[in-house]
Amino acid sequence: MKRLIIALIVGMFLSVQVRTQEPTKTIAERLGYPRDAKLLIVHADDLGMAHSVNVATIKGLQTGLVNSGSIMVPCPWLPEIAAYARANPQADLGLHLTLTSEWANLRWGPVSPKDRVASLLDKDGYFYLTETDAAAHADPKQVEMEITAQIERAKALGIQPTHLDSHMGTLYQSKELFEVFLRVARNQKLPVRVAKTWAARADYLSSALGPDDVYIDRVLDINPTVGPQDWAKFYSDALKKLEPGVTEVVIHLAHDDAEMQGATANHPDWGASWRQRDFEYFTSETFRKVLQENQIKLITWRELGKLIK
Amino acid sequence: MKRLIIALIVGMFLSVQVRTQEPTKTIAERLGYPRDAKLLIVHADDLGMAHSVNVATIKGLQTGLVNSGSIMVPCPWLPEIAAYARANPQADLGLHLTLTSEWANLRWGPVSPKDRVASLLDKDGYFYLTETDAAAHADPKQVEMEITAQIERAKALGIQPTHLDSHMGTLYQSKELFEVFLRVARNQKLPVRVAKTWAARADYLSSALGPDDVYIDRVLDINPTVGPQDWAKFYSDALKKLEPGVTEVVIHLAHDDAEMQGATANHPDWGASWRQRDFEYFTSETFRKVLQENQIKLITWRELGKLIK
Repeated sequence: MKRLIIALIVGMFLSVQVRTQEPTKTIAERLGYPRDAKLLIVHADDLGMAHSVNVATIKGLQTGLVNSGSIMVPCPWLPEIAAYARANPQADLGLHLTLTSEWANLRWGPVSPKDRVASLLDKDGYFYLTETDAAAHADPKQVEMEITAQIERAKALGIQPTHLDSHMGTLYQSKELFEVFLRVARNQKLPVRVAKTWAARADYLSSALGPDDVYIDRVLDINPTVGPQDWAKFYSDALKKLEPGVTEVVIHLAHDDAEMQGATANHPDWGASWRQRDFEYFTSETFRKVLQENQIKLITWRELGKLIK
Repeated sequence: MKRLIIALIVGMFLSVQVRTQEPTKTIAERLGYPRDAKLLIVHADDLGMAHSVNVATIKGLQTGLVNSGSIMVPCPWLPEIAAYARANPQADLGLHLTLTSEWANLRWGPVSPKDRVASLLDKDGYFYLTETDAAAHADPKQVEMEITAQIERAKALGIQPTHLDSHMGTLYQSKELFEVFLRVARNQKLPVRVAKTWAARADYLSSALGPDDVYIDRVLDINPTVGPQDWAKFYSDALKKLEPGVTEVVIHLAHDDAEMQGATANHPDWGASWRQRDFEYFTSETFRKVLQENQIKLITWRELGKLIK
């Protein structure tokens, strides 16, 4: 008995030793980069929402400075971005799974038959305007049906998504929805936008993740408190002090044109001029220099997806 | 027996006499205008299709020179034009019942649950690209369900349609579809776009109509054989020789902007510059003068609808 106890104690000690000697690899290391590498995904959301969004984002992708994006399958301009995806199979395009329709003048609804996803729809037959209303009404089974239908529709149109994220974060609003999201993503063997730093927001955002899930260190995004004149400074400052690991900067590109002004009327946040400013910064020489001077390396969701077994 | 035969012959004679003395009233006369009045509806199609279409058409309506239009319920910018309709209940707005989705980059599908109107949808889940494909596949019962759903959706959004027509003429493509269209319109007590001159196109376009139906004399529209430089001349010439009765000039207003160019890419007919030319002519002083100098009076579908019992 004594021997057994000693053996167990020694065993526990050795186990602790081994863990100390081989700490869990960071996501950067799993990708083959040094632990202190500063890795960045420059990701444009909302593809397919409007022509203006598609045009500006495609221009951004063509510069190489914007290197990833995600597509809203229920939106009217999906066919235009699907044609781009088919013609550019190397592009790092994912799906921006969509359960909200947030603008007053321009709206959309589900890919699934409406009577089968009634919990996702407002009285006008569109997705709810806000992520909180969407999450409050959503039946998780209908969410699973709808997001699966969005993935299938995208694939049928020749889009091979490299990752999944959630428009307006609806799928992060509750544990139940997040579990649906992870289950669908695991079935598809696709990485999802989840950041290590989000654990503080809600327990379920970290506890639901397992050792085989691939997630990033943090998301960087601008917010309405930044004035238009401080736009470039906000991004450049944030990038100059970028921490090691994988950061996704989530941006919204479009032109400040009639269509986008009409779509986002009376809603300056994430509106037409906001998106034009994002477009200007992320296609600028300023941004290119900040990347170079701060040894920031661009990576894609495609690379992250390769870690999934 | 002889008396009976004589009575019958006299009766027939008198009946013919009565008909000769009181010929069937023309639609102009039923509206209270002289038989030789030149009455015109200036009608913009495709409202709701794009922001550019909505903006240009609303500007046209505000001039008073464009005085009618019809709305595509399945299209993404429906909420914007519905808001206009609610704010301008006097506007002569009908529904442009939609069973096709004709552009490559920007598409739409049904108001009804997709699995209940499968015969109306192409492999990508949108309405067919052409009216011939749509008509070839359409199950009339599903057409009836879908166009009824479009009318109900419009009313739920506060649109009180004054008339019905058919985007790309799908509902005129076969006797069966036309009968569905007329049945739905009669139930709604709404006039439909049918012209007396169309009888030559297909028998069923006249034989299906009864004495209580309200229809117009002719439709005037421009076609791709007219060069851009001859645009104004085409319309002015046609209006100068306008025949008496009710004519509907069917026009397509939008601006030649990025959104409309994107929507109608590779399709100059009914494209962005076409619609800009229509906008310019029908909001011009030239058009206003042609109306005045030729004693052309503008009327609306609302007036026509009042003839329906």
